[in-house]
Amino acid sequence: MSIPNVLAERYATPEIQNIWSAEGKIVLEREFWIAVMRAQRSAGLEIPEEAIAAYEKVKDTVNITAIMERERATRHDVKARIEEFCELAGHEHIHKGMTSRDLTENVEQLQVYRSLLVIRKKAAAVLHLLGQRAAENEAIGITARTHNVAAQLSTLGRRIAMFAEETLDSFDALEGVISRYAVRGLKGAVGTQLDQLSLFDGNTETVRAVENSVVEHLGIPRRFEACGQVYPRSQDFRVVSALCDLASGPGSFCRTLRLMAGHETASEGFAKGQTGSSAMPHKMNSRSCERVNGFHTLLKGYVTMASGLAGDQWNEGDVSCSVVRRVVLPDSFFAIDGLLETFLTVLVQMEVFPHVVGRENAHYLPFLLSTTFLMEAVKSGVGRETAHEVVKEHAIAAVRALRDGSTTTNDFVDRLAADERLGISRGQLNAVLENGAKNTGAADSQTVLIFERIASVTAQYPDAKEYRPGAIL
Amino acid sequence: MSIPNVLAERYATPEIQNIWSAEGKIVLEREFWIAVMRAQRSAGLEIPEEAIAAYEKVKDTVNITAIMERERATRHDVKARIEEFCELAGHEHIHKGMTSRDLTENVEQLQVYRSLLVIRKKAAAVLHLLGQRAAENEAIGITARTHNVAAQLSTLGRRIAMFAEETLDSFDALEGVISRYAVRGLKGAVGTQLDQLSLFDGNTETVRAVENSVVEHLGIPRRFEACGQVYPRSQDFRVVSALCDLASGPGSFCRTLRLMAGHETASEGFAKGQTGSSAMPHKMNSRSCERVNGFHTLLKGYVTMASGLAGDQWNEGDVSCSVVRRVVLPDSFFAIDGLLETFLTVLVQMEVFPHVVGRENAHYLPFLLSTTFLMEAVKSGVGRETAHEVVKEHAIAAVRALRDGSTTTNDFVDRLAADERLGISRGQLNAVLENGAKNTGAADSQTVLIFERIASVTAQYPDAKEYRPGAIL
Amino acid sequence: MSIPNVLAERYATPEIQNIWSAEGKIVLEREFWIAVMRAQRSAGLEIPEEAIAAYEKVKDTVNITAIMERERATRHDVKARIEEFCELAGHEHIHKGMTSRDLTENVEQLQVYRSLLVIRKKAAAVLHLLGQRAAENEAIGITARTHNVAAQLSTLGRRIAMFAEETLDSFDALEGVISRYAVRGLKGAVGTQLDQLSLFDGNTETVRAVENSVVEHLGIPRRFEACGQVYPRSQDFRVVSALCDLASGPGSFCRTLRLMAGHETASEGFAKGQTGSSAMPHKMNSRSCERVNGFHTLLKGYVTMASGLAGDQWNEGDVSCSVVRRVVLPDSFFAIDGLLETFLTVLVQMEVFPHVVGRENAHYLPFLLSTTFLMEAVKSGVGRETAHEVVKEHAIAAVRALRDGSTTTNDFVDRLAADERLGISRGQLNAVLENGAKNTGAADSQTVLIFERIASVTAQYPDAKEYRPGAIL
Amino acid sequence: MSIPNVLAERYATPEIQNIWSAEGKIVLEREFWIAVMRAQRSAGLEIPEEAIAAYEKVKDTVNITAIMERERATRHDVKARIEEFCELAGHEHIHKGMTSRDLTENVEQLQVYRSLLVIRKKAAAVLHLLGQRAAENEAIGITARTHNVAAQLSTLGRRIAMFAEETLDSFDALEGVISRYAVRGLKGAVGTQLDQLSLFDGNTETVRAVENSVVEHLGIPRRFEACGQVYPRSQDFRVVSALCDLASGPGSFCRTLRLMAGHETASEGFAKGQTGSSAMPHKMNSRSCERVNGFHTLLKGYVTMASGLAGDQWNEGDVSCSVVRRVVLPDSFFAIDGLLETFLTVLVQMEVFPHVVGRENAHYLPFLLSTTFLMEAVKSGVGRETAHEVVKEHAIAAVRALRDGSTTTNDFVDRLAADERLGISRGQLNAVLENGAKNTGAADSQTVLIFERIASVTAQYPDAKEYRPGAIL
Repeated sequence: MSIPNVLAERYATPEIQNIWSAEGKIVLEREFWIAVMRAQRSAGLEIPEEAIAAYEKVKDTVNITAIMERERATRHDVKARIEEFCELAGHEHIHKGMTSRDLTENVEQLQVYRSLLVIRKKAAAVLHLLGQRAAENEAIGITARTHNVAAQLSTLGRRIAMFAEETLDSFDALEGVISRYAVRGLKGAVGTQLDQLSLFDGNTETVRAVENSVVEHLGIPRRFEACGQVYPRSQDFRVVSALCDLASGPGSFCRTLRLMAGHETASEGFAKGQTGSSAMPHKMNSRSCERVNGFHTLLKGYVTMASGLAGDQWNEGDVSCSVVRRVVLPDSFFAIDGLLETFLTVLVQMEVFPHVVGRENAHYLPFLLSTTFLMEAVKSGVGRETAHEVVKEHAIAAVRALRDGSTTTNDFVDRLAADERLGISRGQLNAVLENGAKNTGAADSQTVLIFERIASVTAQYPDAKEYRPGAIL
Repeated sequence: MSIPNVLAERYATPEIQNIWSAEGKIVLEREFWIAVMRAQRSAGLEIPEEAIAAYEKVKDTVNITAIMERERATRHDVKARIEEFCELAGHEHIHKGMTSRDLTENVEQLQVYRSLLVIRKKAAAVLHLLGQRAAENEAIGITARTHNVAAQLSTLGRRIAMFAEETLDSFDALEGVISRYAVRGLKGAVGTQLDQLSLFDGNTETVRAVENSVVEHLGIPRRFEACGQVYPRSQDFRVVSALCDLASGPGSFCRTLRLMAGHETASEGFAKGQTGSSAMPHKMNSRSCERVNGFHTLLKGYVTMASGLAGDQWNEGDVSCSVVRRVVLPDSFFAIDGLLETFLTVLVQMEVFPHVVGRENAHYLPFLLSTTFLMEAVKSGVGRETAHEVVKEHAIAAVRALRDGSTTTNDFVDRLAADERLGISRGQLNAVLENGAKNTGAADSQTVLIFERIASVTAQYPDAKEYRPGAIL
Repeated sequence: MSIPNVLAERYATPEIQNIWSAEGKIVLEREFWIAVMRAQRSAGLEIPEEAIAAYEKVKDTVNITAIMERERATRHDVKARIEEFCELAGHEHIHKGMTSRDLTENVEQLQVYRSLLVIRKKAAAVLHLLGQRAAENEAIGITARTHNVAAQLSTLGRRIAMFAEETLDSFDALEGVISRYAVRGLKGAVGTQLDQLSLFDGNTETVRAVENSVVEHLGIPRRFEACGQVYPRSQDFRVVSALCDLASGPGSFCRTLRLMAGHETASEGFAKGQTGSSAMPHKMNSRSCERVNGFHTLLKGYVTMASGLAGDQWNEGDVSCSVVRRVVLPDSFFAIDGLLETFLTVLVQMEVFPHVVGRENAHYLPFLLSTTFLMEAVKSGVGRETAHEVVKEHAIAAVRALRDGSTTTNDFVDRLAADERLGISRGQLNAVLENGAKNTGAADSQTVLIFERIASVTAQYPDAKEYRPGAIL
Repeated sequence: MSIPNVLAERYATPEIQNIWSAEGKIVLEREFWIAVMRAQRSAGLEIPEEAIAAYEKVKDTVNITAIMERERATRHDVKARIEEFCELAGHEHIHKGMTSRDLTENVEQLQVYRSLLVIRKKAAAVLHLLGQRAAENEAIGITARTHNVAAQLSTLGRRIAMFAEETLDSFDALEGVISRYAVRGLKGAVGTQLDQLSLFDGNTETVRAVENSVVEHLGIPRRFEACGQVYPRSQDFRVVSALCDLASGPGSFCRTLRLMAGHETASEGFAKGQTGSSAMPHKMNSRSCERVNGFHTLLKGYVTMASGLAGDQWNEGDVSCSVVRRVVLPDSFFAIDGLLETFLTVLVQMEVFPHVVGRENAHYLPFLLSTTFLMEAVKSGVGRETAHEVVKEHAIAAVRALRDGSTTTNDFVDRLAADERLGISRGQLNAVLENGAKNTGAADSQTVLIFERIASVTAQYPDAKEYRPGAIL
C-alpha cells in the first residue's frame, strides 16, 4: 500500500522532487561521505584510494526497502544506511570520526539550500510575468476598491504592480536568507569536533582543513562555528518564514482575482483541454487562485511547526525536532513550489474583460466625481452649502434608485443636469466626467518604478524570463 | 521517483494507512457511488440491477496511474474518477444528480470518522497502560519537582496518574467530537439538493429517503441540514484540535521522562535488538519521548492550518480549502497515530531506577523537612525566632557545602543535631526524617480516583486492554 | 503613562471587563481566601470569626499601585497581595496551608468559567438573531455562488441558515467545554495536598471536606483530582479553541456579506450618527464585518499560544506558562466578546437590496437553466446532440456578448427563441424561466430545520432573545 | 475600571511604552500632520504659518477621553482625532488631500521602526553579556549532554557561545529587516496619490517632493511606490517573525539553564531583596528563565496572527487587519522587550556551581572514556575482541551498580584496574582519565570565533556594552 506525499506528487515539480526523494537523499549522503573520505585522506588519514573508488562505484545503487529493513532491526536510521553502503562497497571506511548528525544535518541543509535556489529562480520568473501582465494592462482604467466597494480610479497595470512590489520585497528577504544560510559542518557529538580531532592527533588546523574541504563540496558559503549536536533550529524557522512571506504577493493577487471573477472583470482563464463547465459556460471557476490561497494556508501552519522548534534546544541538542523537520522542510518546499507553479499558470492564462471593466467604471464614475461636481458648481457661483446639499441629495437618490430597482443605470449626472439650483450645464458635467474617467493619478509613473525593480532582478537571474510553469493538475 | 508520505510510511500503522491510501479512498468512493445508486433505484430511479452489479464487480480494480492521467487531461479530479469507474464497469449510472462534493465530502468525512474511532481505541489503550504503570509505581516515593527543583515528596504512581488525568480529559473531549460529528450528505451544488430533487420530480421526501439511506451506509450518526457546497470547515478544526489536545498528556509525560532520564531516575527503556550505544552503555537516549514531543509540535501546526480554513467560507463555498485538507486531514491522523504508537511503546518499555530515586529523596529530604524540624524544636521549648534562625543558618550552610564541594552528602541533619541551641536529639531528628520520608500526602487516594476513571473507559472499550503497539522505527 | 489593553478598552463589554479587571481579580482572590478560611474554620482550624469579619470588611479596598510596589520589592506577586490584604485587615489568617497556585489557579479558572457563561449567552443571542434574519429573508431568492461565481438559485434565508448551522455546532462544542470544565482545587505545592493535610493532622476526609466547600464557593462543577502544582494546560487550549471555533460561523457570514456589499446586494448597514462618506454616499464600507474577520485572526493566534502550553509540563509544573496565560486568557475572551458584539450589531443593522438581488438573478438565471432548456428541446423532438450543440453555442455567445460589451443584458433566451433548429417557442422558454426562478430546491424546508435547532437553544437560554449589543466603536 | 495592557505594564520598559502609549501616538500623529502641512506649504499650498504655529502649540495637549467620546459618535477614529486637534488649534488645515491611512499607516510604521531600533540595541547588549559570560566560564569543563544525557566534555563558555552564535544570526536577520523597512508615504485612498495631485494641479513632481519631505520627517529610509490603501501586510509578518527569531537563542539558553538548575550545576541567581524560599533555601526557582520561554510562546502566537494578515488583501485593501495590528504590533514589541530585559537580568545574575559541575564530570568521565580505555588495552597487546568484551562488561556492571544502589560512585575504572585480562595498570588508567578530563576538543578556539563576531556587533553599537536591564518583577 502506497501513501505518496500528496504535495510532492500532485503539485511539486521534478526539480524539487529530485532534491527530496528518498533515493536522491541517499545519493547526496553517499556523496557527502565520499567527500569526507577524500578530505580525510588528503589530510593524512589512511583510507585506500581503491576503497573510495569502490564506494563511488555503488553510490547510485539505492535500495530503499533494504535500508528500511535494516533500520527496523537497529532502530537507528543512520546506522542502517552506513551498513548498507559499506556492504555494497565491500569496505568500512566511511563515517570516520563522524556522528550521525555530521551526516544528516549537512545533507539536509544541502537539500534546503538547493531548494532555496530553485525557489528563488521561480520567484524571479513570477516577478517577470507580473511585470509583463502589468505592462499589458497599464492602459486599462479600473474602479479601484477599498472595503471591496468602489473608491477611486486606478489602472489594472497599477493594481498588478502593487502585488509585484509586495513580491519584490519578499524576494529581497529571501535573498537575505540565502546569503546568510550557514551549514553545520563536521562538529561531532556535542559540537567540539572531538572525534575528528582524535583522528588527527588533536591538530585543530588539520581538522579545520578537512571541514573546509567538506563545506566546499556542499557549496554553502557560511558555516556555524560553535553549534552543538545540531545547528540552531531558528535557521529552519527563518527559511520557512521566508517561504511563507514569498506567498503573500501571489496570495493577495489571487484573492483579488477571485473577487474580480465574481464581477466578471477578469478570470484566471483556462488551460487547453480543461473541463470548463459545458453546461454552464458562464462558470469560470478560480480553482487555481483558490489553490494558491490554500498553499499559503499550509505554509502558515509550517511556520507554526518551525517556530515550535526554535528556542527549544536542551543543552547540546536532541532529536525532538527530528520528525518535525522530516515533515516541515520538504513539505514547505513542495507547497511553495506548487504555489509558484500554480501562480505562474494563472499569470500565463489570466484573461481580462475590458468591456465589463468599462461598464463598472461607467457605473461608479459619477459617484467617484461627486466632489468635483460640487467644486464646479461653486466655481459657477453657487453657494458652497447649497451646492453640497444638492449634490448629496441627488447622489443619495441615485444610489437608492439603483438599489431599489427604479433605474438600472446611474442617473446621478442626469439629476444634476436637471436641477436648476446647481446651474451647471450638461456640457460642463460631461467634461468633468470625461476628465475624471482618465484621471488615474500617479498610477502610471508608480507602475514604471516597479518595472525598474523587476528589471534589476531579471537582469541578475536572466533564466527567469524563459521559465514557464509545467502543466498543473 | 517516489516520495512517500513520511508520516504514513515511518510512523503510522496499517489500520490508519488503509483508511487514507489512494487505493483505499478510491474503493470507499466507489462503494459510496454504489450506495447512492442502490438508494436511488429503491426510490424509483431507473438504474438496472445489472449495472449496479457491474460496478460492484470492478470496484476493487484500482489503477491510480490511469486515474492521474485522466486528471491531467481534464484538470478535474472527480471527473477523472467517474470516467475510470464507468469505463471499467461499462455503464454510466453513477453520480446521478450529484455534484463533485456530494462524493468527495462524504467520503473524506468517512475517512475522518473511521480514523477517529481508531484513535479513540488507541487512546483508551494509552489510558489502560498509564493506569498499569501508575499502579506498579504507587509505592515508589519520589522527590516531586516544581520549577524543575525539588519541592515535596510524592509517588511515581501519583505523577503518572497526573498525566493520566490530563489524558482522560482529552479523551472525554474526543468523545464529544465523535458523538457530534456530522456528515454533509447529498446536498448538490449549493446545498439545496436541487439536482436530486430534479431526479425525483421535486419530491423532498423521496430525496430525504435517498439521503437517509446513504448516510446510513456511511454509519455517521449526525448530518448537516443546511450546508452549502461544502460542510463547515470549523468541523475540521474541531477534529484536528481534539487530536492535538489528546497529545498533551503524553507530551507532558514524555517531557518529564526526558528530565528523569537526565537524572537517571527512569528511562524509556530499549526494545530488544535496539542499538544501545555499546561504547557508552550509560547513554540511554529518550529518542521515543523526544519523538512524541515532536509529533505534538506537528499537530500544533496542523491546528494552525485547520484554523486557517474556518470562518473563510465565501458564499456557498469553493476549493481554497482543498489542498489544505488533502494535507491536514491525513497528516494529522498519521501524526497522532504515530504519537500514540510511540507513547504506547514508551509505556511498555519504560524502566524505573528505584535506588537512584531513593538517593535523590535522601539527598533532598532534610531540606524538604526544614519546617518540621523547626516545629519540633519549638515543641521542645526553644523560642520560635531562635529556632528559625538556627534552622535557616544550617540549611543554607548545608546547601552551600553541597554546592561548593566541601561535602558530597547532605549533612543538614548532622549540623542540627550538633547544635546545642536547638536542643533536639539525633533520635528526634531521625524520627522526623523517617516519618517525612513516608509522607506523600493524599497521593495514594488521589491515584485511586484516577484508576476508577480509567476503569470506566476500559470497561466501555475492552479491546483497549489487549492493544499493544506495533514495532516502531 | 497609561497603556490600556486595546481589546478590553475598545471592544469588550463591561460584563467581561469586570471579570478581568485588576481590581475585580483582587476581589475574587480575597473572596476565595475568605471562603477557604470559612471552610477551614468549619473543619476545626482555629481562625477567629472576628478575623474573618475583618477581612470581609476590607475586601473591596483595592489599591493596585500599592500592590505593585510590594511586588517590585518581593519579586513575588502572590506574597505581595497576601501582605497587602493582611495589613488592611490587621490579621494574618489567610493562605493557610496554601501554595500560591492554590490561590491563583482557582481564581483564574473562576474568571475563565464566568467568562464562558457570558460568551454562551451572547452566542445564543447570535443564534436568535441569525434565525430572525433568516426568517425575514426566506422569500428572497438569490444567485448562490460557488467559487464566487453564480451557481444555482437559493434563498437568502437559506444562506443565513447555513451560517447559523455552523454556529449551532460551535455552540454545542462550547457547551461541551463548559460542562466538562474542571477546577484545580486546594492541591498544594505538588498536588498532594500535603500542607492542608498537615493543618488537619493528616485527615484526608477533613481536607476533602474543606476542598468541597471551596469548590462549591467557586460554582464550578468538576474538579481535578491528581494534578500537580498547576492544572493541565490542555484545558486552556480547549477553552481557547472553543472560542476560536465559535468565531467561524460569524466569520464566514461576514466574509460573505463583504462579498455581497461588493455586488451591492446587501450591506452591513449603518448605526445612527455614523459617518457614512458624505462625499461618496454609494460607499458603505463593511467595517464591522472586516473587524469580525480580524477578531478571528487574533483568536487563531491565541490558539497557537495556548497550544504552546499544552504538553509542555515539566514534572509537577512551573511558571513558564505564566506570562502566556496572563495574555491569552483575558485577551481571547476580550476578542470573542468584541467579535460577538460586532457581529450582533451587523445582524441588527444589516440591509438587503432585493432589487439588486433580483437583477443579479435575472442576469444569471438563463445560464443556470441551460440544461433545462436542453431537455425541453429534446422533449419537443429535437435530437439530443443537436440540442446540446445549439444551447451551448448560444450560451457561449451570450456570455461573450456580455463580456465584450456588445450587449448589456443577457440575451441567451432571445437567441434560443430565434433559433429554428431548437424549435421551442418563446412561451415555452419563458415558462422554464418562470419555473426556474422559483425553484430553490429544498432551501425552505432545510431552513426550517435550523429554526428548530435555534429554538431549542433559545428555549434553554431565554435571555438570549432579549440581548442586544452595546454601541460599538 | 482600568484594564492595562499586561505586557506593557508588567514587562516592557518605558522606552518601548513611550512609543506605543495612546498619548505618545497622538503626539506622533500630530507631528506628522504638521510635517505634512509644512511640506504642503513649501510646495505652494496656502496654509498660513500662524495656523501651523497654532497646531504646534497644542500638539502635546492630549485628552484621550475626549477623543474616545468623539469616536463613539462618529464611529470613525481618525475623524475623531482630526476634529479634536482642529478644535484645539482653532484651525482646519490638517489632513489636506489625505486619507485616513495616509496618517495611520505612516505613524504606526514610525512606531514599528523606532521600536525595532530599541530592540536592536538591546539585542546587542544581550550579545555583549553572552560574550562576557562565555569568557568567564571558558575554563569550566562540563559534561555536555545530548538527549539530556551525558555525551562528551565541553566547556561552559563553549555552551554559552553556542547560544550566542544563534543570537548573532537572529541579530543579522533583524538588521536585514531594519535596513529594508519601507514606509507607505502619502498615497491616498487607493494608492495613486489622486488627492495630493488634485491639491497640486496634477503635478507629480510637486507631490513627490511633498512626499519626500514627509518621509524624511519619519526617518525611514525606504518607501513603497505602488501600494494601495495599505502597505503590504507581509512586512508586518516579516517584522514579527524577526522578533520571534530573536527570541530563539535566549529561549534555548534559558531552557538549558532550567535543566542545569535541576542538576544544581548553575542557577539564574537572585535579585537583591527577592524572596528566595526561606523555608526551603535549596529552592532556587528559574522563574526568569521560565518567563523567557513564556514570552517566546507568545511571540509564536503573534507570528500566527501576523501571518493571518499576509496574502489576504482584497483589491486595494480594507481594515480587516485593523484590530489585528492594534494588538500584534505593540504586543509583540512589549513581549520581545520584556523577554530581552528578563534575559539580560538572567545574564547579569546567573550563578555557576563549579564543584557540582566537577562532580558531574567525575561521575561520567570514565564512561565517556570507555573507548580510550579499550584502545589503551589493545596497545598493551590485548586482543581487540577480548578488550571490547571486558570493557563493555565492566561498563555495564558499573552503570547497573550505580543505578541499583550497590555503589554511589562510579567504580568503572576500579573494575578495569582489577581485571587481569586487560592488563592495563591503575597508573595507565589514571593517565587516560587525567588527559580525558582536559580534552574539550576545539571548544576554546570555537568560542574565540564567537567573541570576534560579538565584538564586531558591539563595535557598531557601543552603547550595548553599557546597557543594563531595569529591575524586573
